[in-house]
Amino acid sequence: MNKNTQILLAARPQGMVKDSDFLLHTAEIPPVTEGGVLIQNEYISLDPAMRGWMNEGTTYIKGVEIGAVMRSFSAGRVVASKHPDFSVGDNVVGLTGVQAYAVSNGAGLTKVDLSKGQLSRHLGILGMPGMTAYFGLLARGKPRKGETIFVSGAAGIIGAAVGQMGKIKGCKVIGCAGGKDKCDYLLQIGFDGVIDYKTEDVAQRLKELAPEGIHIYFDNVGGDILDAALTNLARGARVVICGAISQYNNAVISGPKNYMKIVSARGTLTGLIVFDFIDQYAKAVLDISKWLKSGKLQYKEHIIEGIENFPLALRMLFEGKNFGKLVLKIGE
Amino acid sequence: MNKNTQILLAARPQGMVKDSDFLLHTAEIPPVTEGGVLIQNEYISLDPAMRGWMNEGTTYIKGVEIGAVMRSFSAGRVVASKHPDFSVGDNVVGLTGVQAYAVSNGAGLTKVDLSKGQLSRHLGILGMPGMTAYFGLLARGKPRKGETIFVSGAAGIIGAAVGQMGKIKGCKVIGCAGGKDKCDYLLQIGFDGVIDYKTEDVAQRLKELAPEGIHIYFDNVGGDILDAALTNLARGARVVICGAISQYNNAVISGPKNYMKIVSARGTLTGLIVFDFIDQYAKAVLDISKWLKSGKLQYKEHIIEGIENFPLALRMLFEGKNFGKLVLKIGE
Repeated sequence: MNKNTQILLAARPQGMVKDSDFLLHTAEIPPVTEGGVLIQNEYISLDPAMRGWMNEGTTYIKGVEIGAVMRSFSAGRVVASKHPDFSVGDNVVGLTGVQAYAVSNGAGLTKVDLSKGQLSRHLGILGMPGMTAYFGLLARGKPRKGETIFVSGAAGIIGAAVGQMGKIKGCKVIGCAGGKDKCDYLLQIGFDGVIDYKTEDVAQRLKELAPEGIHIYFDNVGGDILDAALTNLARGARVVICGAISQYNNAVISGPKNYMKIVSARGTLTGLIVFDFIDQYAKAVLDISKWLKSGKLQYKEHIIEGIENFPLALRMLFEGKNFGKLVLKIGE
Repeated sequence: MNKNTQILLAARPQGMVKDSDFLLHTAEIPPVTEGGVLIQNEYISLDPAMRGWMNEGTTYIKGVEIGAVMRSFSAGRVVASKHPDFSVGDNVVGLTGVQAYAVSNGAGLTKVDLSKGQLSRHLGILGMPGMTAYFGLLARGKPRKGETIFVSGAAGIIGAAVGQMGKIKGCKVIGCAGGKDKCDYLLQIGFDGVIDYKTEDVAQRLKELAPEGIHIYFDNVGGDILDAALTNLARGARVVICGAISQYNNAVISGPKNYMKIVSARGTLTGLIVFDFIDQYAKAVLDISKWLKSGKLQYKEHIIEGIENFPLALRMLFEGKNFGKLVLKIGE
């Protein structure tokens, strides 16, 4: 009989995550009780939010307990069901953790439609990151035709989607990413301008590329790039805080020194908790799958094989070494 | 014949303002040319914004040139006029500077109605600071009955007005100020709770006084108190940035380290440039003068005499040594 391989949280990381913060564990496959579903996971999503989940205490969701299966969005297939809403063979996505098999009572488990895109995409552009880009830009950024959007972490899944959605909405889009390959990729998928934060002065380049100022700043990174963006806001700018990946591994967060620029620009700073839009996901998935099929939206995945490579994959994410949506493939 | 005494900006201050950053100067009283007004100033307003005006470069308004009369809101009377809209004897407020006599072409000069309050009050509760409290709280904070408001710099003119207006709107109001006298004063004018930042842990006390979280944070100070407020936001909180007096004399601004809390609280951060509401000032002056007359709004002035004391008065403002709206009295 098969066993269940799992990644457990072994320690609360100090600074950057290490291999020893996790433990590869083998357990029995749990039985399915009344009202339950057994899922065989095929893909594990690697997300910046994972760093927060590894801390003690609450941000918007409880931290993972030491010794528990590491929390993750995972995609798989139902292999046994005693739940009225799920049948064997259903494709599902949920917070079912970094493990080969998971039982669920159905809470937070979503059936996905492979006609909208292959399974792994439901962890990415058709899943939480895609929803984050969609609602972060459209509901929080509220782009108007002709406006200028600046996106950091632009070669990441959320950033690349935000930029392309900005183009779809008729905006000028400038992206910030690290390295020539990523910047070239952004130009190739339709960005109007790119800034390589590893070699360029972001504030200065932004002034050159957007002399009119930026109307929307979609922030995936925080830190110095957030500060650079704040010095270049157009009047009435919307700063949408989606993440702060530059800060997640820091014990002391560096806050935006130029936050008073939001005041002088008559701007606003807001953020996004994507779960708040759950009742509108279906519409977003429909829009995004149409854009994908028509080629208006291009999407890249970076797949790492083997559950044992989870800590490595997570570090790749935080070190910006991935190129496209990072997914761990664990199933057959 | 009388002379014009003036305070000129002598140097761009490094850190806290010093006496030597200014120069007391005596000039001729300028002649009134066609379309001009000569004003004899009686009161000079001391405002936190002055620190920004002394820097080079632009925030939302140009810096004062070295050797020029220091910019200020001043209140006085028209003593000669060749302008169709102003007559001798009119009481006026405008950016006419730290000087006994000023000529104006009428731009930005406002006639004030002493039936709404005595002249000096038009630099305070009936002037820019009062407008800032009114529109900052009502238009940006959007208080709803039963909500909790936290105000920093609460014993300052803006803070005290915001707190009392919050009470008028049916909110619970907590103020933060430095020292027992100021805190006692806040309780006396109707604040529900006070925190003395000089002796208390602001974040901890805020948790105790507002276990429900704060719905509006009206920030006059920035720095650590802003960070403490951000850890105690209620869901949907509005953070209104009015000033950052704790930071104005610092070369390196400390940004809000806890800004991600705005995201998890589904909050917003906005600011206020009071000039944007100029077409609604008349309504605000009417409301405020009614509240003053009915006793719902209490107002304190701290008057320093003598134009030569301007640098001292400005330092008092930045060191929090004033108790009530700081005004310099220079006229008869």
